[in-house]
Order: sequence, then structure tokens, then C-alpha cells
Amino acid sequence: MFRYALKIEYNGAPFAGWQRQKDQPSVQAAIESALARLEPGPHTIAAAGRTDAGVHALGQVAHCDLTRDWDPFRLSEALNHHLKPAPVAIVACVRVANDWHARFSAIERRYLFRILMRRAPATHDRGQVWQVAHELDAAAMQEGADFLLGRHDFTTFRASICQAASPVKTLDELRIERFEGLSGPEIHFHLRARSFLHNQVRSFVGTLERVGAGAWKPHDVQKALTACDRAACGPVCPPHGLYLAAATYPDDPFA
Amino acid sequence: MFRYALKIEYNGAPFAGWQRQKDQPSVQAAIESALARLEPGPHTIAAAGRTDAGVHALGQVAHCDLTRDWDPFRLSEALNHHLKPAPVAIVACVRVANDWHARFSAIERRYLFRILMRRAPATHDRGQVWQVAHELDAAAMQEGADFLLGRHDFTTFRASICQAASPVKTLDELRIERFEGLSGPEIHFHLRARSFLHNQVRSFVGTLERVGAGAWKPHDVQKALTACDRAACGPVCPPHGLYLAAATYPDDPFA
Repeated sequence: MFRYALKIEYNGAPFAGWQRQKDQPSVQAAIESALARLEPGPHTIAAAGRTDAGVHALGQVAHCDLTRDWDPFRLSEALNHHLKPAPVAIVACVRVANDWHARFSAIERRYLFRILMRRAPATHDRGQVWQVAHELDAAAMQEGADFLLGRHDFTTFRASICQAASPVKTLDELRIERFEGLSGPEIHFHLRARSFLHNQVRSFVGTLERVGAGAWKPHDVQKALTACDRAACGPVCPPHGLYLAAATYPDDPFA
Repeated sequence: MFRYALKIEYNGAPFAGWQRQKDQPSVQAAIESALARLEPGPHTIAAAGRTDAGVHALGQVAHCDLTRDWDPFRLSEALNHHLKPAPVAIVACVRVANDWHARFSAIERRYLFRILMRRAPATHDRGQVWQVAHELDAAAMQEGADFLLGRHDFTTFRASICQAASPVKTLDELRIERFEGLSGPEIHFHLRARSFLHNQVRSFVGTLERVGAGAWKPHDVQKALTACDRAACGPVCPPHGLYLAAATYPDDPFA
């Protein structure tokens, strides 16, 4: 067997999420079906992050095992051919060691969340941003976000269905910037951690949006964090502004 | 009658173009139908630029006449409500004088053209960029583009079906920049002129792409221009990377 690492971009709109599910379209099943066109299956691929329904990826990473010694470039071309017309693309493909694992070898995940601030409905970015009709104060949101940096019990920002063994995680980056998009001003949240709890990013963004709108003070984020109570979280924001931006490995296989 | 100027954003993908056509969806008809939900029609609206099938807009401008004295904000909200789910949005709306005309009062049009440079199929920006699999030399393209600036006979870069009285136009800006998009490196062309000939932007971009790819020298653009011969033009590029970015008026009604 030969193992290949795939860097994958997708628009999450038509999918029930990354993970294969009975009777529902998933990104995993789309790629496994494309693999089965190349070599008889069944194929089961593992990914760095299991994104929820409606969540997008710029740099999801997965690995697959094949019996043929494929040229990685030809493999990516063949997969992209068979993936059409699904909005899923293999943007890079490399051979890796047979003990390399897309999920367990990853040492960091990066997420991007996009908010579009305008009243008129989005046309070009529909389903790819969370739209709010009001202006948000990026500096106040950053002030609130800074309380979340470092190692904390993130029970407040964790979905009740989260399966992680512990609510204690270390958040390495939560950077907020204003971005002038083609359709209007956006707020971009850049997050980085070894791993995230279920709904952690959407819980952060939904809470920080309240700060940006002036309904919460920045310091209220710290109070919510230290409460260690799911009920202290702000409203969880919708999934369609969220992008799995990258997964990082000790030796970047795509470098 | 009261006249209103509308600033309009749209995704051109599902439309046969701006202009109303029998049995084909158009942006004009979508907005006229929304107007008819507010006041009995028929309504006929005029626009600053008549975009072709698949061409998008960030800042198309049109005007409409209504019998009621609408609050402009409420008018835009009502139109956006009735436009759903079409990817068309009224992003600004103002009262204007009854002799103000979206097309004839405009003194300048601005266009944006986006090229995405990568091999894997686009997922997030599908239908909103022209994708080329090779790297393009932005500096060489700019060198070629500079020959097009100013007042020229643009017969070479004009569709055979163009209805303009004269092929002589003045191009005020053709600026080319590299842009790091979420899905990879892009080339953005920014164009500005009082008015454009039919297919002029797509003829420019298709020709300059050949320069960026190294198949043409920058100086070949000047030779093509001075030939004043449609056959001297490079390949006309596809419509779906093109955006009508703005129309300019002596007194900006949206200011």
C-alpha cells in the first residue's frame, strides 16, 4: 500500500459536513467515491478536522491508501476529474510515510471566520459569509478575544455533544481584522490551536459579535470563560462563515 | 412621478445578461418584476451598463420612476425582499431629479476582471473568476496594457456586433495587480473609461493574458491596436471573471 496526503478545498453548502453519513451527502463520501473510480473500494479516509454541515475548507488535509504507486500530480488530477461537479478540489497531493496520519500527526489547526457587515443580502458571497446588518467594533472584539488566549477550561464555548476527553485546550491565536471585500466591509477572525472543541469557533465568534455590536463589554467575555458554564456563552453563530484554513504537521508534507 | 437611482449588485451566472429578453432570465426583468410588486407596471428601467450573459456587477446603477413618494431606504428593503432568491441586491437607493438618467448622466464606467491562477478547479469562486492553470507575468501584462491607455481607434478590441457609433474611445485606466485570494493568487484588472465598446474589456483581458503567459510580447499589443483589425485581437476571454464595478456621475447621487 502507498499512502497519500491530500490538501482539500471545499464549499460546504451542499454537504451535511465532512463525515460520511447514511443517506446524506458528505465531503468524505464524495472523495471516497472518486477514489473508488480509480481503485476498487471501499475506501475510508481520515481528515485533520471533521467540519460540520455548511462549514467550508481552504486547506483540509486527509490521507488515503492505494495499492498502485500513483504519481501524486496525476492522482490529484484524476480525483479532481471524478469529483466534478461537486465543489470539492484536491489542491495538493503528496506521498507520505505509511505511519503518517492526517488527524493524529497534525499539531495545529487554523480556522478563518468571515462576517460581512451590510444590510442588503449578499449575492457573490451568499452562503460563504455570516451577514450582520450592523457595524462591528473590531477593537472591542479583539479586547474581548484576548481573554480567551492561552490554556483554559473552555466548557462555556463547547457544544453539549462535544466528544473531547477534556474541555481544557490552549488557544494560540485569535486575531481579528477588518477586511475591505468586494461586497463591503468584512471582519475576519483568524484562530489557531492544536485542536478545538466542537462548536468552539462558532461559540467564540457568536459571543464576540455581541461585543462588537456593543451588547456585551469586552470584560464580559472573561466572565463567560471563567463561569465554565455552557449557559454563559453568547449565541452560537451560523456555520456558513467558517473555513478550516489549514492543518499543520511537524514536517510539512506539502512544502 | 418620482425618480429613484438604484445601486445594484448581482451574480450574473443565472442570467442571460442585464437586458430584458423574451423567455430568458435577465437582471433587468428581475428588478422590474420586483417593482411591479410595489406598484402596478409595466416598469422599464435604464442602466449605466448593459452587461452580457454571465457578467457580474458590484455597482451597476439604474433608475426607476414610481408614482408614490417612497422613502428610499424602505424602497430598497422592499425590492430586496421581492428579489429573493435571485442573486440580485439593491445596495443603495436615493431620490434623484426627474431628468437624471442612469445611462446618459454617467460620465465614467469602471470594470474589474478577476483571473484565478491555479490548476485545481475553483470551489468557492466558481463562476466568479476566469481560471487559468499557469502563472501570469503581471509586469509584462502592465507593459502591454500601457499601450492601450489614452484615445485610440479600438476596432481591434470591439465585437463585430458592437453598436457604438465610433470605435474611437479614451481609456483612462488599465491597472493590473496581483491579489492573494483565499483560493490562490489572482490577477485583478482595473479599467476606467467614459464608455466601453462591446466586448472591449474581455478583448483586452484575453489579449493581455497571452502577454502574461509569454506567448505575446508586450509590444505586440501596440501592433494589434494599430492594426485596427478585429482579426489582430487575442482570444476574447470568458465573461464570468468580469464585474461592472461602478458608474460615476457629475454629482454622486449616492454620496
